[in-house]
Amino acid sequence: MSLTIYRKAHFNAAHRLFRKEWSDEKNLEVFGKCSNPKYHGHNYDLEVGITGELDPETGFLINLDIVKQIIEQDIEEAFDHKNLNLEVPEFASLNPTVENIAIVIYNKLRLKIPEQYDITVKLFETARNFVVYTG
Amino acid sequence: MSLTIYRKAHFNAAHRLFRKEWSDEKNLEVFGKCSNPKYHGHNYDLEVGITGELDPETGFLINLDIVKQIIEQDIEEAFDHKNLNLEVPEFASLNPTVENIAIVIYNKLRLKIPEQYDITVKLFETARNFVVYTG
Amino acid sequence: MSLTIYRKAHFNAAHRLFRKEWSDEKNLEVFGKCSNPKYHGHNYDLEVGITGELDPETGFLINLDIVKQIIEQDIEEAFDHKNLNLEVPEFASLNPTVENIAIVIYNKLRLKIPEQYDITVKLFETARNFVVYTG
Amino acid sequence: MSLTIYRKAHFNAAHRLFRKEWSDEKNLEVFGKCSNPKYHGHNYDLEVGITGELDPETGFLINLDIVKQIIEQDIEEAFDHKNLNLEVPEFASLNPTVENIAIVIYNKLRLKIPEQYDITVKLFETARNFVVYTG
Amino acid sequence: MSLTIYRKAHFNAAHRLFRKEWSDEKNLEVFGKCSNPKYHGHNYDLEVGITGELDPETGFLINLDIVKQIIEQDIEEAFDHKNLNLEVPEFASLNPTVENIAIVIYNKLRLKIPEQYDITVKLFETARNFVVYTG
Amino acid sequence: MSLTIYRKAHFNAAHRLFRKEWSDEKNLEVFGKCSNPKYHGHNYDLEVGITGELDPETGFLINLDIVKQIIEQDIEEAFDHKNLNLEVPEFASLNPTVENIAIVIYNKLRLKIPEQYDITVKLFETARNFVVYTG
Repeated sequence: MSLTIYRKAHFNAAHRLFRKEWSDEKNLEVFGKCSNPKYHGHNYDLEVGITGELDPETGFLINLDIVKQIIEQDIEEAFDHKNLNLEVPEFASLNPTVENIAIVIYNKLRLKIPEQYDITVKLFETARNFVVYTG
Repeated sequence: MSLTIYRKAHFNAAHRLFRKEWSDEKNLEVFGKCSNPKYHGHNYDLEVGITGELDPETGFLINLDIVKQIIEQDIEEAFDHKNLNLEVPEFASLNPTVENIAIVIYNKLRLKIPEQYDITVKLFETARNFVVYTG
Repeated sequence: MSLTIYRKAHFNAAHRLFRKEWSDEKNLEVFGKCSNPKYHGHNYDLEVGITGELDPETGFLINLDIVKQIIEQDIEEAFDHKNLNLEVPEFASLNPTVENIAIVIYNKLRLKIPEQYDITVKLFETARNFVVYTG
Repeated sequence: MSLTIYRKAHFNAAHRLFRKEWSDEKNLEVFGKCSNPKYHGHNYDLEVGITGELDPETGFLINLDIVKQIIEQDIEEAFDHKNLNLEVPEFASLNPTVENIAIVIYNKLRLKIPEQYDITVKLFETARNFVVYTG
Repeated sequence: MSLTIYRKAHFNAAHRLFRKEWSDEKNLEVFGKCSNPKYHGHNYDLEVGITGELDPETGFLINLDIVKQIIEQDIEEAFDHKNLNLEVPEFASLNPTVENIAIVIYNKLRLKIPEQYDITVKLFETARNFVVYTG
Repeated sequence: MSLTIYRKAHFNAAHRLFRKEWSDEKNLEVFGKCSNPKYHGHNYDLEVGITGELDPETGFLINLDIVKQIIEQDIEEAFDHKNLNLEVPEFASLNPTVENIAIVIYNKLRLKIPEQYDITVKLFETARNFVVYTG
């Protein structure tokens, strides 16, 4: 038996894919145009799923307003209209691939969402590319 | 090995979130503007998933027309253009949160869909809030 | 030459279609299940278009944050999680069809958006039914 | 722990549902208008999910450009603007239901995607009907 | 002043683009893979717009149920699950490009929608290619 | 009488809104977080409409493959995975607001699309903000 409630959010950010340890040539070879040193950007669409037991008194799995506030404060304010490489500490030395961004979001939410709930992070980098991470 | 076929449907309904046992103040505190005593409403989008074995003769997991008819008769006719609190018996004393509506839909479908199939109910209350219930 | 900038918004509301002067039978005949006396509801999706001249200094046609605030205060706060028939004064004696709701929204925005701009209101009652009103 | 990356693709094709062993009447009875002997068609939307371990060096689960190329060469070129019954060998004697098409796609991808990755195929025949197959 | 109400519909059909007077080579040169002699197909999404004056008594521009019925009978039943070239008389000698399909739909609706209303036909052949025709 | 055919495209880019002549404080005051000196980014979705007469021989308004190629070469290759401010010459001294980007796209297409056709550019900066420019 499984009940999951989802909340959507979004943020717009600049990034580039690269490893500092590699030359520009090697970064270009591995990451292609995504390694452009002058950055490009995306509208990231986020779906956060919370899995757990229903509270029979309220009929809520969790108060979604609280989830919404955590997402706004910890994810949207931290990432929106930012350069992920330069301005978001988690990516100072971590390549901001859509996979890594999803893992960072999961880890940030895991600190705030009570333990009895499982978390699913679905993150769209474009309408065609997206990831799902469940911890 | 898993094969699931999905069918989308939708219904438009009014509702309010509240517990009869609570005062208006307590309902407002817990459910916010969703507890408005004069009701508000939603376009509910529903995705029903049926999981099971393929029938090698037809190449169908299940005849989707039969699923479509069950959804129309048991869900859409029962809920569409209705006030969920006042006109749908299942919610006479059950708070019509999106979680509870999904569980009610699952239970109604479970009575009609043969036992060898598992059922998934995904219900969107808005484009931003939705639940998945798998029984 | 024409440049139009659009902003999307949304609100969730209950309503019923009916004329007070008509019997329930006549209302049912004309408005069908939309005349349910106990109300039903929708997620209304709104697109507001503002047409005018570009400000060459900013590259903005209009500051969209100001448009967003007007929509939030005058439309979303007025309509969201409300019963349109009972709680929105404009529909006290006006049938809240999607056509009339779009006209009311246009008229409210027309009072706040400077005269040099034309306004377009596109309002979705469902994903399948919508109107466009241009004053 | 689970990380899955998805890539969307699409193809437009004609098909009919029928079994050669059955009469036209029986095909019509079982498959309805989908058995039209002169064919009908669809825009098929495909989401391929690849599940596995993150490569900590690149921050990629898999190089999505390689997945994109496999999908283009093995699925889109093979199916796009084709008559599935007449021109795609896999359906010479297999009924091209959306279930069977998803299984064929999965099997074709399974030959090319390295073993350490799991594959999910989500295939939309229409916006309302779709399947998920995970092998 | 302009008020338009829209209704969405859809049909799935097979077609090929070609001129009988031309060789297969010339058809291939001009129409590319769309001229495949064995056909391909699409999910066509249709938006019909009706422009006119509001009826102040009902608050309706037009009774959308009547528009819905006309679209179902004259467009969906005529085109859905059909081979446009072989089974729809209007395309017996007319190339079923998305442009021509939109014009045929417009002309069929023009016969049924009262003269005081203008008609707009928006037809999607794919999510990426579509036309608008206004007579 | 009007017939318009549309083609969708997309590109992902970084940008910031600012005027070189203004201080960072003034830019922040006018452009808000969009003036972040370290850039942010978007997935831009583009719809190009071409209005004109139907070619009765082909049933095409224009060969959409040619339009698609012009968009790919002149818009997508020029803008995709770029920093609009630093790498796209048109924005060297022009603020890359969504309005100005749409006008630049229109002007670039106007040079390539034959004169007998009118052009419409619809550009989405986010799912909620977009512009339409018709020259």
